[in-house]
Amino acid sequence: MTKTTSLTSLAQAGEFGLIERIKRQAQQGDSVVLGIGDDCSATHVAEGKVLLTSKDLLIEEVHFRRCWTDMYSLGRKSAAVNLSDIAAMGGTPHHLYLGVGLPADLSLAEVDNFSRGFLDEVDQAGASLCGGDTCRSSDKLIISVTVQGSVSATQMLSRKTAQEGEALFVSGTLGDSALALALLLRGENPSDFLCQRHHRPTPRLALGQALAQQGIATSMIDISDGLLSDLGHILKQSALGAHIDQQQIPLSSDTRQHLHDHPADEDLILQGGEDYELLFSAPSCCSDAIDALGHRLNLPLTRIGTLLAAEQGLTLVQLNGQEQRVEARGFNHFRS
Amino acid sequence: MTKTTSLTSLAQAGEFGLIERIKRQAQQGDSVVLGIGDDCSATHVAEGKVLLTSKDLLIEEVHFRRCWTDMYSLGRKSAAVNLSDIAAMGGTPHHLYLGVGLPADLSLAEVDNFSRGFLDEVDQAGASLCGGDTCRSSDKLIISVTVQGSVSATQMLSRKTAQEGEALFVSGTLGDSALALALLLRGENPSDFLCQRHHRPTPRLALGQALAQQGIATSMIDISDGLLSDLGHILKQSALGAHIDQQQIPLSSDTRQHLHDHPADEDLILQGGEDYELLFSAPSCCSDAIDALGHRLNLPLTRIGTLLAAEQGLTLVQLNGQEQRVEARGFNHFRS
Repeated sequence: MTKTTSLTSLAQAGEFGLIERIKRQAQQGDSVVLGIGDDCSATHVAEGKVLLTSKDLLIEEVHFRRCWTDMYSLGRKSAAVNLSDIAAMGGTPHHLYLGVGLPADLSLAEVDNFSRGFLDEVDQAGASLCGGDTCRSSDKLIISVTVQGSVSATQMLSRKTAQEGEALFVSGTLGDSALALALLLRGENPSDFLCQRHHRPTPRLALGQALAQQGIATSMIDISDGLLSDLGHILKQSALGAHIDQQQIPLSSDTRQHLHDHPADEDLILQGGEDYELLFSAPSCCSDAIDALGHRLNLPLTRIGTLLAAEQGLTLVQLNGQEQRVEARGFNHFRS
Repeated sequence: MTKTTSLTSLAQAGEFGLIERIKRQAQQGDSVVLGIGDDCSATHVAEGKVLLTSKDLLIEEVHFRRCWTDMYSLGRKSAAVNLSDIAAMGGTPHHLYLGVGLPADLSLAEVDNFSRGFLDEVDQAGASLCGGDTCRSSDKLIISVTVQGSVSATQMLSRKTAQEGEALFVSGTLGDSALALALLLRGENPSDFLCQRHHRPTPRLALGQALAQQGIATSMIDISDGLLSDLGHILKQSALGAHIDQQQIPLSSDTRQHLHDHPADEDLILQGGEDYELLFSAPSCCSDAIDALGHRLNLPLTRIGTLLAAEQGLTLVQLNGQEQRVEARGFNHFRS
């Protein structure tokens, strides 16, 4: 219990009161020269490293519904999906910035729960919240996060450095989050496991860093818009084609069971979003090292296909064994 | 005219089409290792400098109305208000990140105008757009900008290093932007000059850098929430009081004329926001250097008061000559 629990509304706390509350809870790492509370933060970037930066907007009714999630989980997820972008470069996260547009119907307790979740996720990643912006919003909750990390320039993993003949791997299981969302949209109740996968994604930071530092992966992306869409970015930027074996795509038992009963939902595995697993390419000779890494991190790392020349396009061996030429497509944010 | 002008809707262009359009227009500086189009940008930070970062959210109906501004100006302003935070630290801007939540009624031409304005402001500041996020929004246009810059750690100007006895200065003229907004809210037409001051603020980058590099200023902030509120941050963080002479506050002729006819609007000068002028403290002996700097930059730099011990609080000599104790207060973003 803090001294300020008697304040229950945002109007009473005010913008600067709210910033003070968040500042009191935030830890600051050694690299922070000037943290929350000035025009800018000031931070150090280690010599020999490049600065990694990413940002994501999360808008109520577009990216989440408040009735489906608790505010603590929403706070964690808002940080996690940004940390996932640092993981996808093989980087280490350092500093996060949080902008929130708060509708009047949100209580101070809800904002506190949100910040607690955000800060717990940031702490767990060994990073610091260093600044941001708070304002009111007319009706929707708006969350804007920027994350900064670093990586050695020679180890950084982009999307454009995959090579023909290399194998494609994914971490974890795919489709759980998209399936949870599909069930929620249909008014059904996803299992606790599926809900957890949707509302509390895990940024694969340790995996990303190990793949970069050990020089195993040659390109990497996090799967946020769906496997085919995100694979499409690697193929386009590396000027390659690929062959994917759908039978090899790793599924959780909950998702496998659901697809057994509802085979029409199969597309969620290939085109659903928000897995926040890592998709990476590596030479086939690295399979043993990748197995060992998966064991050490207690995280399945599964080979799902092979990179081909660009003119071979993207082919998929479907579950029925038929080969199909597919388009790399995922979620178009501007179609309803 | 580009090849893609036949596309008129965002749904046709798609998220990645839109990102491609923006990427084609964006210039990349030498410090950019990896720009738009990967999970993160990767950038260099010069040795011996600290990284400055700030972010701002601009939400339709809260920060702007589309019927009052053209999209080009809105783009410029979205960049400018962020660049102003770098100016306030005495820094040089390098990299910007743009997140947009786009409502369905926005045309691709409007988005293009917005990006053009944003990029023109970024170019003028010698910086690069390096990444961001685009998604749809249910009804309101949402703009989220992050800016990164750098400054020598020994020259950086924060809010907490002002000293008792020093003089307080402001750049430009105050109240023009708040007056324009007040008139718009009343359904009146502000003059072109006032509109320009509201819709097209100028980040005082050259001034901020000169004050930092010449070691003239001891603390600095940009006036975004109103003079008294932003002065309040310096006073609180430097543990000081101040004495402000309202007669000395620099006004444009448009604002002076308006206040002559409508003296009730006087509060806009002290409490109105969005001036984006710099408020800084400096030893009194620096007056000549400050005059010379103002002449060189063709920008009025005006002494408006003196820093006192904290226990003396904040006093204002009003236009009628009466001294009044005031609270440092500005815009509370959570009150309507």
